[in-house]
Amino acid sequence: MTIDVYFTTGEVEPTAFQEATAVVIDVVRATTSMVEALANGAKGIFPTTSTEEAVKLASSLGREDTLLCGERKGIKIEGFDLGNSPSEYTPEVVGGKRLVMKTTNGTGAFAHAQEADRIFACSLTNLSAVAEALVGVERLVVQCAGRQDRFALEDAVCAGHLLKKLLGPKGGDAALNDGALASLALTKGIRLGRAFLARTWAGRSLDNIGLSADLKICADVDRHAIVPEMHDQALTVAR
Amino acid sequence: MTIDVYFTTGEVEPTAFQEATAVVIDVVRATTSMVEALANGAKGIFPTTSTEEAVKLASSLGREDTLLCGERKGIKIEGFDLGNSPSEYTPEVVGGKRLVMKTTNGTGAFAHAQEADRIFACSLTNLSAVAEALVGVERLVVQCAGRQDRFALEDAVCAGHLLKKLLGPKGGDAALNDGALASLALTKGIRLGRAFLARTWAGRSLDNIGLSADLKICADVDRHAIVPEMHDQALTVAR
Repeated sequence: MTIDVYFTTGEVEPTAFQEATAVVIDVVRATTSMVEALANGAKGIFPTTSTEEAVKLASSLGREDTLLCGERKGIKIEGFDLGNSPSEYTPEVVGGKRLVMKTTNGTGAFAHAQEADRIFACSLTNLSAVAEALVGVERLVVQCAGRQDRFALEDAVCAGHLLKKLLGPKGGDAALNDGALASLALTKGIRLGRAFLARTWAGRSLDNIGLSADLKICADVDRHAIVPEMHDQALTVAR
Repeated sequence: MTIDVYFTTGEVEPTAFQEATAVVIDVVRATTSMVEALANGAKGIFPTTSTEEAVKLASSLGREDTLLCGERKGIKIEGFDLGNSPSEYTPEVVGGKRLVMKTTNGTGAFAHAQEADRIFACSLTNLSAVAEALVGVERLVVQCAGRQDRFALEDAVCAGHLLKKLLGPKGGDAALNDGALASLALTKGIRLGRAFLARTWAGRSLDNIGLSADLKICADVDRHAIVPEMHDQALTVAR
């Protein structure tokens, strides 16, 4: 098995995903919100790369059972139905709905990985389920969403815990790139939890806009046992 | 004290270096070779961003006491005097000479950091000396050279050990960005040494071109007690 972990989209060519299984991680908050939404009954999530694309797609899908979701600078986009707080994605709100989503880093990472054979969404809240779905995969590429093409610690640590579950702490005999080696090593130096997330740039940014309560769900390891998988344009629950 | 660690040059704006002290790290091999050269009596090292610039500068400095040094794809550039193996930089070869240097990642990182108040070169071979030189600094920016704008594990781990020496393992009360937090955490999960370097992309690449012996010097922590510092265009030994 070969495992490559990349901390930003900028450092990986789209062709690197060919014949690979991709896992996209954006712990604070896109993939956490996606897991929450699908676990709570959303029919599917369409990640988009721009607000314009999101609005157009929602309109073509039919606005009556489609929710427009996403943030700009952390705050709900004007005119959208939901922001990017996982706590907004309750069964009452998202049950039976299609979600069109645009976030600063996470949703674009799915487009970046589009040449992969399969694409899964991972957060701390569905770590074990994703690890289980990856058993038997030959080539794995983990794409951390990062922060506007910069390193984001919480995504790297999540990738490390995913690899640890998959391989055991020593990494087994898988061929690991520098990002994968680093991710695994980070799991030894950092203790998961809300306090850890609060120290990251993403956590401090949420605090600055009054949304630090979001970190509680983001830090809740294995809260759900589902794996979001891309089919055509949408993430649905992998069977 | 604020400490920002960046793993690639792409993720930091040149303006981020303003009013900061910069440390440039390229463990395999540029900053290791630089430390070796200055410790062995080179008068100064001029890092350059292109082969053309290197050739032109060496010619304007006067070729009689100037050595042209550097690599392309790891191998000595054709027509140059030295490659990028630290073992080439002996007192007999570099003593009393000016060195003009061009490497794939390391030398360009110095130009990237040029707006900093002071710029130091760091490798594992002069870690403690650099940490000592940084005592009292208010704003520190550590620029890992990385690998063609990708994450390079050995530079991140070197940055972590530098911070650990400076701050103690807990990070003291310094304000740390995600890269700095990650670097420090990596020191807990990774044991320094030649075997570690051999597992990295850089180490495997050297092995592919028959230069893995270089890793012995690259891994030799605190081999020298000198700090290369940029003045005008050249690195010399900081007093």
